Amino acid sequence: MKKNIAIALTLLSAVCAQAQEKKYPEPEGMRPGMTEFWTPQRKVVTPGDIKTNSAPSDAIVLFDGKNLDAWHNGNGGPAEWIVKNGVVTVDKTKGDIVTRKNFGSFQLHLEWCVPADINGEGQGRGNSGVFLQDKYEVQILDCYKNETYINGMTGSIYKQTPPQVNAMRKPGEWNVYDIIYTAPVFKEDGTYLYRPRVTVIHNGVVLQNNTEILGTTEYIGVPRTVPHGDGPIRLQMHGDPSKGISFRNIWIREMK
Amino acid sequence: MKKNIAIALTLLSAVCAQAQEKKYPEPEGMRPGMTEFWTPQRKVVTPGDIKTNSAPSDAIVLFDGKNLDAWHNGNGGPAEWIVKNGVVTVDKTKGDIVTRKNFGSFQLHLEWCVPADINGEGQGRGNSGVFLQDKYEVQILDCYKNETYINGMTGSIYKQTPPQVNAMRKPGEWNVYDIIYTAPVFKEDGTYLYRPRVTVIHNGVVLQNNTEILGTTEYIGVPRTVPHGDGPIRLQMHGDPSKGISFRNIWIREMK
Amino acid sequence: MKKNIAIALTLLSAVCAQAQEKKYPEPEGMRPGMTEFWTPQRKVVTPGDIKTNSAPSDAIVLFDGKNLDAWHNGNGGPAEWIVKNGVVTVDKTKGDIVTRKNFGSFQLHLEWCVPADINGEGQGRGNSGVFLQDKYEVQILDCYKNETYINGMTGSIYKQTPPQVNAMRKPGEWNVYDIIYTAPVFKEDGTYLYRPRVTVIHNGVVLQNNTEILGTTEYIGVPRTVPHGDGPIRLQMHGDPSKGISFRNIWIREMK
Amino acid sequence: MKKNIAIALTLLSAVCAQAQEKKYPEPEGMRPGMTEFWTPQRKVVTPGDIKTNSAPSDAIVLFDGKNLDAWHNGNGGPAEWIVKNGVVTVDKTKGDIVTRKNFGSFQLHLEWCVPADINGEGQGRGNSGVFLQDKYEVQILDCYKNETYINGMTGSIYKQTPPQVNAMRKPGEWNVYDIIYTAPVFKEDGTYLYRPRVTVIHNGVVLQNNTEILGTTEYIGVPRTVPHGDGPIRLQMHGDPSKGISFRNIWIREMK
Repeated sequence: MKKNIAIALTLLSAVCAQAQEKKYPEPEGMRPGMTEFWTPQRKVVTPGDIKTNSAPSDAIVLFDGKNLDAWHNGNGGPAEWIVKNGVVTVDKTKGDIVTRKNFGSFQLHLEWCVPADINGEGQGRGNSGVFLQDKYEVQILDCYKNETYINGMTGSIYKQTPPQVNAMRKPGEWNVYDIIYTAPVFKEDGTYLYRPRVTVIHNGVVLQNNTEILGTTEYIGVPRTVPHGDGPIRLQMHGDPSKGISFRNIWIREMK
Repeated sequence: MKKNIAIALTLLSAVCAQAQEKKYPEPEGMRPGMTEFWTPQRKVVTPGDIKTNSAPSDAIVLFDGKNLDAWHNGNGGPAEWIVKNGVVTVDKTKGDIVTRKNFGSFQLHLEWCVPADINGEGQGRGNSGVFLQDKYEVQILDCYKNETYINGMTGSIYKQTPPQVNAMRKPGEWNVYDIIYTAPVFKEDGTYLYRPRVTVIHNGVVLQNNTEILGTTEYIGVPRTVPHGDGPIRLQMHGDPSKGISFRNIWIREMK
Repeated sequence: MKKNIAIALTLLSAVCAQAQEKKYPEPEGMRPGMTEFWTPQRKVVTPGDIKTNSAPSDAIVLFDGKNLDAWHNGNGGPAEWIVKNGVVTVDKTKGDIVTRKNFGSFQLHLEWCVPADINGEGQGRGNSGVFLQDKYEVQILDCYKNETYINGMTGSIYKQTPPQVNAMRKPGEWNVYDIIYTAPVFKEDGTYLYRPRVTVIHNGVVLQNNTEILGTTEYIGVPRTVPHGDGPIRLQMHGDPSKGISFRNIWIREMK
Repeated sequence: MKKNIAIALTLLSAVCAQAQEKKYPEPEGMRPGMTEFWTPQRKVVTPGDIKTNSAPSDAIVLFDGKNLDAWHNGNGGPAEWIVKNGVVTVDKTKGDIVTRKNFGSFQLHLEWCVPADINGEGQGRGNSGVFLQDKYEVQILDCYKNETYINGMTGSIYKQTPPQVNAMRKPGEWNVYDIIYTAPVFKEDGTYLYRPRVTVIHNGVVLQNNTEILGTTEYIGVPRTVPHGDGPIRLQMHGDPSKGISFRNIWIREMK
C-alpha cells in the first residue's frame, strides 16, 4: 500500500497548485447528534466462558459431550459415532453425521483432535471435513509435519483455496475451528448472484478471510454451481485407514 | 433463502421438460490429480495457548504485560499509560497511545476490562476505542446494561455500523476482541477502489462480518474519504470522567 | 498498479531462490474438453438498430413515442405528461410518472433532452431524475457549463456518489443513459446483505462503474436503509422554474 | 426478490408490536447543504457522435480506420493486418496484434464483423478474441445460428463464464463491444486480493455485468493466478480456416 502515501502527497500538492482557483462552497457544518441512531437496540447475548469457549446464550448447541441428538446418519436414522468422556469419535463403519436442522448464514465453533498415535500420511492421516450447508467442505486433516497438496490442507476450501498458513497443533492436542459462513444468493437461472463466503480461524489464526467459495468442493473436477437453500452441517467419515478423529464443543449461531 | 429451494425444484422440472430436447456434449471427465496444487507450501505457525489466547509464533506482540516499548504517545514520545501486574491502564492525563509500527491488513487480538466499580452512563462509561490504520474506530464502551446510540456501542464502526448484538461481559471481567482488517485500495483520484473491511469478534461472538467501512469514523459529520497508506493502531484515551479502562495481551499478525 | 510489476519480479526471483528446494508434484495435465460446458444454451436476443439504439427483442418498451400506457401518475391514475412527435415532455403541473410494472435487476435505456433555450442555473436548470426501484435516484440535470455540487450532477447517485466525469451534450441535443442496476438483498433484520449497485453510461462514457448505492437518495440527511422488493422506474417532475425536459426511446431488460 | 416484500411487511408489523416500548431519541434533523459536496469539480468530456459511437474527447484512439500505428505484432515489430476502407482485417499469416501502450482499468469500445459468406462451424467460424491486459480473453466468435460450448460463445469470459444471452448480428453486419474492465489487485504472495472484473455490452445488450474473472483464460486447464501489472489489449488471430474477421472504431478510456 506504499503507493497510497504517494497519492496522498500528490493530492496535497495538487491542492496547493489549485490554491488560486475558483472558490467553491463547503458543505454546511453538522452536529454530533445528527449521526446517532438509537434503534433498534441490540439483543443481549451472554458470551461463553473465556477459557473453554463454551456456547454463547443465543447459540444452538450441536454437541455438548452427552449425545448426538442434534445429528442423524445422513439418511434420517440415528447418528452412531461413539460418545464417551464428553467427546464424540468417528466410527468408520457408520458413515458421516449430519445435523437435523438446516442453516443459512452462521457462525460455527467446533473442536477436533486426531489421536496422539495417528498413523498414515498425506490425505490418509486424520482426514475428515466439515461441510457447510452440505455443499462446501472446509478440510480437516492432520497437517502436523505432514505435507499434501495445499488446497487439500486443513483449513482449505477443499480443492479450491488453500489456507494462508499451517497452524496445526500436534496429534493428541485439540484444534479449534471458528467458521463464519455467509450463504449464497442465486439468480433465477440457478447461477450465483453472490457466491458463498467463509472466514476460517484455526487455533486463533486466520486461514481464510471472507474467501469466496467458487462452487461445490468436488474430489474430481471443477467446482459446480448447484442452486440450494438452507442446509445442514455434515461431518465427514473419511475412508482412509488412519485412526479416527474426535470432536467436542460444537455450537452454531444463526446469522440471518 | 427458502426461495432457492423453489428454484432448485423449478430447475429439476425444467430438466424434465427439456428431456426430449437436443442432446449436447458433456464436459470430458477429469481425474482427481488435476485439481491438486502442491506449491507454494504453507508457512508453519505455532498457535498460541488454547486457554489464554497467547500470541501465535508469527505475531508481533504489541503488549505482553511488561512495557509499552511498541507504543508512543502520538507525538513520538514515550507512551505513559500505567503498566502494572501484566496490565496497562489508561492515564487520562496522557492522551492516546499509538503503535510505533505501521500496518496494512492484519489480524489483531486485544483484551480489555473496565473497572468493576465503573461509573457514568451512555458514552460516558468506560469509553475508549481502537483505531485501525489510525483512521477507522472500532468502539470500546461499557455497554453492560448501559444503553446508547447503537452505532456508538461496543463493536460498532463508530457512527457508522452498529454491532449485530451486545455480547458484553460485566464490569471487572475481561473482554476479548479479535479483529480481522483488510486495508482499502484507492484510485488515483483518492477515492476508494475498494473500501476497508473489518470482522469484529467480541468474546467469541461475531459483531461485524467483513463489514465495509464507509470512510473515516467522525464524531461530527458523515464519513470522509482520505487516501492513506499503512498506519498504526491507536488506543483512545477518552475524556469522559468515568474510571479508566485497562488492556492486556495485545498482538497482531500482518496479512499482506 | 505499478507495484504489481514489482511483485511479479519479486516472485520470479523468489522462484530462482527456491530452485534447490524439494520437488513437489505438478497437477495432472488436462484436456480442452474438460472445461467446455454446453448447457444451458443461451437465449437468442435480436439487438436493436446500431444507429438508433432501438429496443432489443427481449426488452419491455416503456416509451416508443406513441403513448404513456406503461406509466401512471404515481397514484394509479393516467400519466399526463405531453406526448408529441415521438417525444414525451414533462408537464410541471402533473407530478412524476411511474411505470406500472415493478422491476428487480435490470438494464435500462432512456434518452433525454433539455430545451435549447433552457434557463436557470445550478440545480434549477433542467432538473429531473430517474429513480431505480422507486428508491435510488440517478440525477438528471443540465450540467453543460453549469456547475453545482458534484454529488448532484448528472449521473450522480444523488447526494451520494458523484459521476467520474461530465459528459453532457449541449442543450437541445439528446443525451443517452444506459443504466445497469443490480437489486439489493436484505437480511432478515432489514439491513443490506448486499447493497444495490449501478453502472451508468452517459453518451457512451462511463460515469458510474458498478457503484454501490449506500441507501436511499435523500435530499435532506444521510442515506437510509429501507427494506424493499421489486419496484417501478420513476421519472421526476422537478419543481424548479426552468423549461421542461423531454424523453424518448425508453426500454428496459429484466436481469433476474 | 419477492421475499423482501414479506420482510418489509414483517418489519411494519414489528413496528406496531413495539409501539408501547421505550421511546428512544431520534437523530437530530439535518439541512440540505450538509450533504452537498462541490469539489473536486469533474473533468469535462465531449462525448462522441450519437449515431457512430465515435471516440469521446478523453479517449485514446487505437484504430481510426487509417493505420495500425498504435499496435505491434506481439514482438515489437509492425502490426501487419490489412487496413482498407477504414477497416482492419486479420491476416492469418501474421499472428495477433497488440497495443503498444499498457492499460490498467479502462472502458474499451470496438466494432467487429465477420464476412457475410463466413464458413465453418462451432469454434471454427469467425473465431477471435480480445485479451484484456494480455491475460483475460473476452471471446469473439460468429455465434449467429452457430452453437458451441456456452463458455466459448461470443461475450464469454473464455472457458469461464458464459454470456447471459446471445445477441449476435448476422454475418456481414457490424457487432459492437463496449467493455468496462477493472484491473485486479494482488496480495504480496501473488494471489488476488481483488479479482479482475468485467462488464461486456454487445450490440447494446448486457452479456456480463461486472463479472469476476477467476484467473487467466486457458484453452487447456483451470484458470491460473498470475500476478501482473498494466498490460496491453491483444486482438487474436485464430488459426481456424474460416474467413477472417474485421475491426473498426477502436478506442479506450483509462479509468485509474
